[in-house]
Amino acid sequence: MRLLADMADPTTDPLSEGNVLVFATGPIVGSGLPIGSRYDVVTRSPLTSTTTSANSGGGVRRCDEAGGYDAVVITGRPEEPVYLFMDGGYAEIRGASDLWGQTTNETTSAIQRENDDPKISVACIGPAGERLCRMASVMNENSRAAGRGGVGAVMGSKNLKAVAADRDRVLRLKEEIVSKIRENAISGGGLPRFGTAVLINVINKNHILPTRNFQSAHFPRAERVSGEEMAGTILVGKMGCEVCIIGCGREIELAGKRMEGPEYETIWAFGPDCGIDDLAVIAQANVRCNELGLDTISTGATIACTMELSEKGYIDETIRFGDAEAMHDLVRRIGYREGIGDDLTEGSLRFARKHGHPEASMSVKRQELPDYDPRGLQGHGLAYATSVRGGDHVYGHMIAPEVLGSPEKLDPYTSEGKAAWTKTLQDLTAVIDSSGSCLFTSFPLGADDYAAMIAAVTGFDINTAGLLRIGERIWNLQKVFNIRAGCTKADDSLPPRLLEEPLREGAPAGRVWERQPLLDEYYRVRGWDGEGRPTAAKLRELGLGELPPHLAGVPAR
Amino acid sequence: MRLLADMADPTTDPLSEGNVLVFATGPIVGSGLPIGSRYDVVTRSPLTSTTTSANSGGGVRRCDEAGGYDAVVITGRPEEPVYLFMDGGYAEIRGASDLWGQTTNETTSAIQRENDDPKISVACIGPAGERLCRMASVMNENSRAAGRGGVGAVMGSKNLKAVAADRDRVLRLKEEIVSKIRENAISGGGLPRFGTAVLINVINKNHILPTRNFQSAHFPRAERVSGEEMAGTILVGKMGCEVCIIGCGREIELAGKRMEGPEYETIWAFGPDCGIDDLAVIAQANVRCNELGLDTISTGATIACTMELSEKGYIDETIRFGDAEAMHDLVRRIGYREGIGDDLTEGSLRFARKHGHPEASMSVKRQELPDYDPRGLQGHGLAYATSVRGGDHVYGHMIAPEVLGSPEKLDPYTSEGKAAWTKTLQDLTAVIDSSGSCLFTSFPLGADDYAAMIAAVTGFDINTAGLLRIGERIWNLQKVFNIRAGCTKADDSLPPRLLEEPLREGAPAGRVWERQPLLDEYYRVRGWDGEGRPTAAKLRELGLGELPPHLAGVPAR
Repeated sequence: MRLLADMADPTTDPLSEGNVLVFATGPIVGSGLPIGSRYDVVTRSPLTSTTTSANSGGGVRRCDEAGGYDAVVITGRPEEPVYLFMDGGYAEIRGASDLWGQTTNETTSAIQRENDDPKISVACIGPAGERLCRMASVMNENSRAAGRGGVGAVMGSKNLKAVAADRDRVLRLKEEIVSKIRENAISGGGLPRFGTAVLINVINKNHILPTRNFQSAHFPRAERVSGEEMAGTILVGKMGCEVCIIGCGREIELAGKRMEGPEYETIWAFGPDCGIDDLAVIAQANVRCNELGLDTISTGATIACTMELSEKGYIDETIRFGDAEAMHDLVRRIGYREGIGDDLTEGSLRFARKHGHPEASMSVKRQELPDYDPRGLQGHGLAYATSVRGGDHVYGHMIAPEVLGSPEKLDPYTSEGKAAWTKTLQDLTAVIDSSGSCLFTSFPLGADDYAAMIAAVTGFDINTAGLLRIGERIWNLQKVFNIRAGCTKADDSLPPRLLEEPLREGAPAGRVWERQPLLDEYYRVRGWDGEGRPTAAKLRELGLGELPPHLAGVPAR
Repeated sequence: MRLLADMADPTTDPLSEGNVLVFATGPIVGSGLPIGSRYDVVTRSPLTSTTTSANSGGGVRRCDEAGGYDAVVITGRPEEPVYLFMDGGYAEIRGASDLWGQTTNETTSAIQRENDDPKISVACIGPAGERLCRMASVMNENSRAAGRGGVGAVMGSKNLKAVAADRDRVLRLKEEIVSKIRENAISGGGLPRFGTAVLINVINKNHILPTRNFQSAHFPRAERVSGEEMAGTILVGKMGCEVCIIGCGREIELAGKRMEGPEYETIWAFGPDCGIDDLAVIAQANVRCNELGLDTISTGATIACTMELSEKGYIDETIRFGDAEAMHDLVRRIGYREGIGDDLTEGSLRFARKHGHPEASMSVKRQELPDYDPRGLQGHGLAYATSVRGGDHVYGHMIAPEVLGSPEKLDPYTSEGKAAWTKTLQDLTAVIDSSGSCLFTSFPLGADDYAAMIAAVTGFDINTAGLLRIGERIWNLQKVFNIRAGCTKADDSLPPRLLEEPLREGAPAGRVWERQPLLDEYYRVRGWDGEGRPTAAKLRELGLGELPPHLAGVPAR
């Protein structure tokens, strides 16, 4: 009503161009409350000459859901009949000369056929509205009527045959997405059945499961801490984030008590990396970390580093690999900063450096590396080295092509072509994270799927290239931030052990991580200079030419 | 990341006040797609000194759903520990000194207990974050971790123990609303069982069912066109608007073909008002109106008026009450403006006036009245006469208290106290329509329920008085529009028959509609002048003091 009052002079002939026709939903529509499905057609009535607000139930409310529209206001009058088509924030006025004269049912069917979707919501007029009958209605979903006050005649006077909303763009996508997730071997099989720990045996078999602080890449008793082992012993249930249909989370029972089960990374950090082969011990360390609010990867890996320092005699304390009690005690000490924990809480690099052996810290940019040995994974090593947030397996996630064959299988031992792959996966994972999506959906889904979903939800015109560009923007902005924060090319590297000490066992035996060719190529494909600095031209290309004052001066020429 | 880059200098110590902590969801979250349940904690990492973005799944995404927040940015540092509580657009910083030192599980439980809701989503830090451990995580839903980069330490450095979101304000309301709708005799019984036509027998029994163009208020064969009759004969299914749990719509089968069944108003208009007692004939007229896009009330009532004019010899055409074929023919002619239909399409008043008998049009402000005889319903008559959109039974809907006893039973024959009731119901129905809610939910629900729902969905601080004030604003804005459009006090009336010819049968026999006392009292309770014009003071009180130029000068002094 406010829109009508603001836009229309009440003395204007209701059937003239000056009248305004408002389709409006309300705040309850789309709220999930089972009472909100109505919309109003508000205008000056040609029957009563007063304001009118014909109310109807049904699908045009989807204008709101699909496009984020609260109201659609129709003014003016085109020469020829038209209809308004709305699809996820996108609105188009289309010719409707062929629809003129048709009944409301015929019109609805024709628009649904034309757009190849029988679920498109159509509000339209029939011959009565076209002929400006003062008792013409607007019909939606064939049989629901915004009936009174002659609102159909006002629509007819504007040569507007229909307002159609594609209400199923998100819903259609949902069906497709659900079936892709369910049919994929990882998201529909391994992850729901065995949780993220389904990877333990796979990674160990490939001799890339870091063991005893990366002193080896194979843990002989890995099976005892695998997802399969968990499923056959302590597992009592599955957990998923809200709305998730994968459900990779685990619920376990220990000593009669139900608790969350450990993830793959956590199992590795408190298991193989610390020389522990007891799932119950690992699960207890996990629960304790959660209670204290500690990152399980950095905590476990820092303890593993401490164990190596101890075994090599670089520190006074005696903390051996495989010592469950010592490990549990260190978790507590780190969380409360007690004794040695006060130093350990600074992270493995600061601790190891303090004791003269920084090389014992298996970290990148001071953050502890996760559980894939890059000596057997050239691309994944590059993702580790160049991650803008330090040692991290999620950004980039080259494990997918190099081990799991998703989206295609790459030779993990070669550095060739890995820079471009790493860049693409870094940009993709950055935009997936930013979208609020779960990264595990990237096994069944491709960049085109994410682009389609984000386009459907936001109404933005985003294709696959546009999606990756968003990721690249995120990545470059982080890189600029990091350079200003003090990062240099030297930080884009891995611990010396991974560059200098070849693996000794299995298929990747004899290999180290090949920094030089990978990094040079990576900077090149990123469009950065030889020192790894984004160029001003690159940033301008990405629409990041205007940086806040505290970031100015960072880009290379 | 953009928020961090814009707000934080990368050279600032990550654990100092200058660092910025961002909790952000993404566009996929809350979209209905089964992959969107993640959020990021973005900040400068105290572990890596780079940017970091710890990602986690679960409930904090509800910040988005409950409050419409895409991101929450934390800056500064209070003297004492605090936590952030968000509830449907409302955010409050609360003391958390008693939570300091507790584990993440203890903290989560304590906040849920304190707010009396075990489903509140809590993201918090444990002792590790409080102690600025560089590997401290942020935990949410007890066991989900935004684990890496020491984001928990940044939270601790800001003395922020938790971010809690009441995710169930709308959901909790939903459960309550659903059970109220299901348990109510009308919304949970009569309407789903018999559709809106459940009213035919009720209204006829009360001798207020207008028959043969309001020449009588009782239709002897009403049972044959009742909702009960439909349910026992042609009914094959029920239909509801999307999200609706009432389902008052009907699906019927006629001659082997499925189609939408007629509503109560439609049955009346093509049935009793035209002297027709055949549901199939009525249903066909309904379908034809829908196809042509014609309002069934105005079309049926205009035909009834034509029948009276014909029987009294005021027009040349012979169109008798009860003549099904003539009725169907007129529907088509009106829709296509053929022959007499070209005049009828102007509505009953213009047609009757053209033939010298405007009194035969049973309309208010030129719009045909619906199916309740106001001579036996003083309050409903007032709602008819004063409706800002002409003859209309929905705005005001005094049938509810005067016949159905909702929310309480009023004597339908007295005018006393009806003005205040009518004003309240007009304001209430206006705001219910505006909210997108179905009016039938007002049988089980009260103004307080709508206020609670709109508050929950919008995050606005709206109580019952505030809700009715919105309705009153809508009403007054329409009234101002109408006055400028030419309406005067004379338009706030009913057709002469209802003022002058007493009913002859049943309980309301001998009564007419009592305009004078009702209208004077109504203008008074509305705060309008004696001519029914909103005063400038009233409009200012309603926040409508500033009107668009084309509405200026309307208010009374």
